[in-house]
Amino acid sequence: MSQTVTEFEVHDIRFPTSQQLDGSDAMNPDPDYSAAYLVLRTGDGSEGHGFCFTIGRGNDIVAAAIEALRPYVVGRPAPTRAADLAALHHDLTHDSQLRWLGPEKGVIHMAAGAVVNAAWDMAATRAGRPVWEFLASMTPEELVSLVDFRYLTDVLTRQEALAILRAAEPGRAGRAALLRERGYPAYTTSPGWLGYSDEKLVRLAKEAVADGFGQIKLKVGLDIEDDVRRMELARAAVGPSVRIAVDANQRWDVAEAVRWMTALAPYEPHWIEEPTSPDDVLGHAAVRAGQPVKVATGEHAANRVVFKQLLQARAVDFVQIDAARVAGVNENIAILLLAAKYGVPVCPHAGGVGLCELVQHLAMFDFVAVSGSWEDRVIEYVDHLHEHFADPAVIVDGRYAAPRAPGFSARMLPGSIAAHSCPDGPARQARPTAEEAGS
Amino acid sequence: MSQTVTEFEVHDIRFPTSQQLDGSDAMNPDPDYSAAYLVLRTGDGSEGHGFCFTIGRGNDIVAAAIEALRPYVVGRPAPTRAADLAALHHDLTHDSQLRWLGPEKGVIHMAAGAVVNAAWDMAATRAGRPVWEFLASMTPEELVSLVDFRYLTDVLTRQEALAILRAAEPGRAGRAALLRERGYPAYTTSPGWLGYSDEKLVRLAKEAVADGFGQIKLKVGLDIEDDVRRMELARAAVGPSVRIAVDANQRWDVAEAVRWMTALAPYEPHWIEEPTSPDDVLGHAAVRAGQPVKVATGEHAANRVVFKQLLQARAVDFVQIDAARVAGVNENIAILLLAAKYGVPVCPHAGGVGLCELVQHLAMFDFVAVSGSWEDRVIEYVDHLHEHFADPAVIVDGRYAAPRAPGFSARMLPGSIAAHSCPDGPARQARPTAEEAGS
Repeated sequence: MSQTVTEFEVHDIRFPTSQQLDGSDAMNPDPDYSAAYLVLRTGDGSEGHGFCFTIGRGNDIVAAAIEALRPYVVGRPAPTRAADLAALHHDLTHDSQLRWLGPEKGVIHMAAGAVVNAAWDMAATRAGRPVWEFLASMTPEELVSLVDFRYLTDVLTRQEALAILRAAEPGRAGRAALLRERGYPAYTTSPGWLGYSDEKLVRLAKEAVADGFGQIKLKVGLDIEDDVRRMELARAAVGPSVRIAVDANQRWDVAEAVRWMTALAPYEPHWIEEPTSPDDVLGHAAVRAGQPVKVATGEHAANRVVFKQLLQARAVDFVQIDAARVAGVNENIAILLLAAKYGVPVCPHAGGVGLCELVQHLAMFDFVAVSGSWEDRVIEYVDHLHEHFADPAVIVDGRYAAPRAPGFSARMLPGSIAAHSCPDGPARQARPTAEEAGS
Repeated sequence: MSQTVTEFEVHDIRFPTSQQLDGSDAMNPDPDYSAAYLVLRTGDGSEGHGFCFTIGRGNDIVAAAIEALRPYVVGRPAPTRAADLAALHHDLTHDSQLRWLGPEKGVIHMAAGAVVNAAWDMAATRAGRPVWEFLASMTPEELVSLVDFRYLTDVLTRQEALAILRAAEPGRAGRAALLRERGYPAYTTSPGWLGYSDEKLVRLAKEAVADGFGQIKLKVGLDIEDDVRRMELARAAVGPSVRIAVDANQRWDVAEAVRWMTALAPYEPHWIEEPTSPDDVLGHAAVRAGQPVKVATGEHAANRVVFKQLLQARAVDFVQIDAARVAGVNENIAILLLAAKYGVPVCPHAGGVGLCELVQHLAMFDFVAVSGSWEDRVIEYVDHLHEHFADPAVIVDGRYAAPRAPGFSARMLPGSIAAHSCPDGPARQARPTAEEAGS
């Protein structure tokens, strides 16, 4: 049977999450968690799944962008080795006409990421390994071959990247065993959505501690007095030893961020996440210098060039990769290597639809084969929408269990795809139309 | 008759420019100049035209993104005043669900720009004035009301912007008269495309000088020896007093840019444009510090936050705004104000389809009402595709004549729209398909 990719199926999948205010924050009051979802199939019956995460309107635009990448995939042999995955990533991000739409940012770059991630899912599945193990089985030479070093070499050369990976090589087996035994540290954002009442916040914060989480996160940024009260309530609920991160979702200018975090500092927030524009490297550096709380960002950083600068400018204390915003696994390897060079911990962004499932593999790969450490590192966890996945992320005692099933853990169940596909799926009917939600 | 916007018509327009290698550069070997083109119409018969410029594949994605903005426009009263244009710009860039696709960058941000610019075309046309005059007739208070200061206030507050505009107010009438009399300085890129032979380069460079241009531009970045030879030929052709800018179109890493420009420096390039990634603020600063040639960038800078940092980091000697990449006139006013604050000249990017027509208005407005200067300032000119416009840019003795017709000068002729619309227009047939051009 043919080992060629023959099918390239794009779905516009939407969940009406805005009805419960799940996911509500200072910039995104009413998200409808959505995925522009891609299924690849080969003639010999293997599949690869990938997607972009969006919050509702515009999911169709991203689906159209994924569709535009079809010619790069259909007719191509199923990827199996690093060289295949390097070539596909290169082709998708170097189409000069499509690159013009970014370059390397926004809709077209996210679409490339969905295709790259689907290819990794297919390759790892064919190899019979979870993606984190599949990655950690590659040699340092194979791993650097996956990275596009363009625009990075003033800070990270191929040789330096090789040295980082080689230094981590001797400990790989031991750390993989540790990971299988103990899982990877997680934190939960479930208590802290802005749309929740104080009572719900306190109840969920206490539940999080009881469930074994050592860190929770609160959304902030709409009203400073509300935030001080919520932070005080949360601190009282969890006690002094549980970490409380706060997340402003890009709400502030620099001076506002400094003022706000100075007010919250007495309650010892672990980090302030996305205090300002994700494009503002120098702004993040100013926020970091201007108040006592550590700074985290990255879920909306457009590409490896922005991460490079965040590290160069000493603008962040924590690097928050996202599995589905940059150009997939390959570009995230570049970002992990940059963070390792600077010794800055990577604490991935997750939540949404399927982001926990994907990004756990990247953090675990980082632990086993790149940074070699889980010190000060945590993966975000949000307990929404996991029921739609065939191999959902599993949390045990506040830690992500290491995935054992082959692939990238993000295959949505066929019934969920059918039920939530737009415009024909029945779940779509619950969603407000753009016209209703518009001006 | 109704003064409400009732029609919102999106066209996918493509020109098969790759057949002549017009527009070829180190990153874009075969562009098919295209426009995702929007026509607004009111019940009482007025129109507003706007568009995104792309180079072929993916033009349909941008058209889909413009389409997604329809609910914000249809049913809205025709814009006439600054307040209307401020509100529309705000609504288009603050839809939280669509913002997720950027934020404020790439496809969705370019689409917002097309709609904003169409609204400006409509408002200026209804006022019976070209856009540059329409803008220059507004008070400083009206002008600052058009700007979104979010993420700018650490560098430019509303008060500072007002002070800049007020300082320029007394000289407005005199400079407008000067502009009508003399036009605005231009330079031409027509001689310098990478796909052209040495003979064609020399012939076109001489023609440019004969036509009155004081500056030309060469594309560089594919082969250093070729570039040294071409630069030497061009310098010999134009003599010592004509400026020759060079443009690498993002081709290099920092060290490569420094090495290359050090080799070209003996021929006295006026600036090096886009030496590296448009996202790399710190990289541009390093290139500027590392070699003697002045640095220009901006045509692919995603938004005002990137421009803010380019200026903060002293990374550029020239700011190159683009009329159709950021969110339209409003965001470009923010960028003009940022450049004025730092005293850095704005030298707009143009060419493509209709970009000369649009951006001349912004440079002229800058001269009349913002920076108050045309010292060291030039607008790019490329002599392609102007025949498709009803009110094309006019060059006289190497200068842009000030537009006199109402509107934004970028209304494509109905026959051109029909002939080049995709997928049904006949001109479309000449274009290679994505399948042919793909991997």
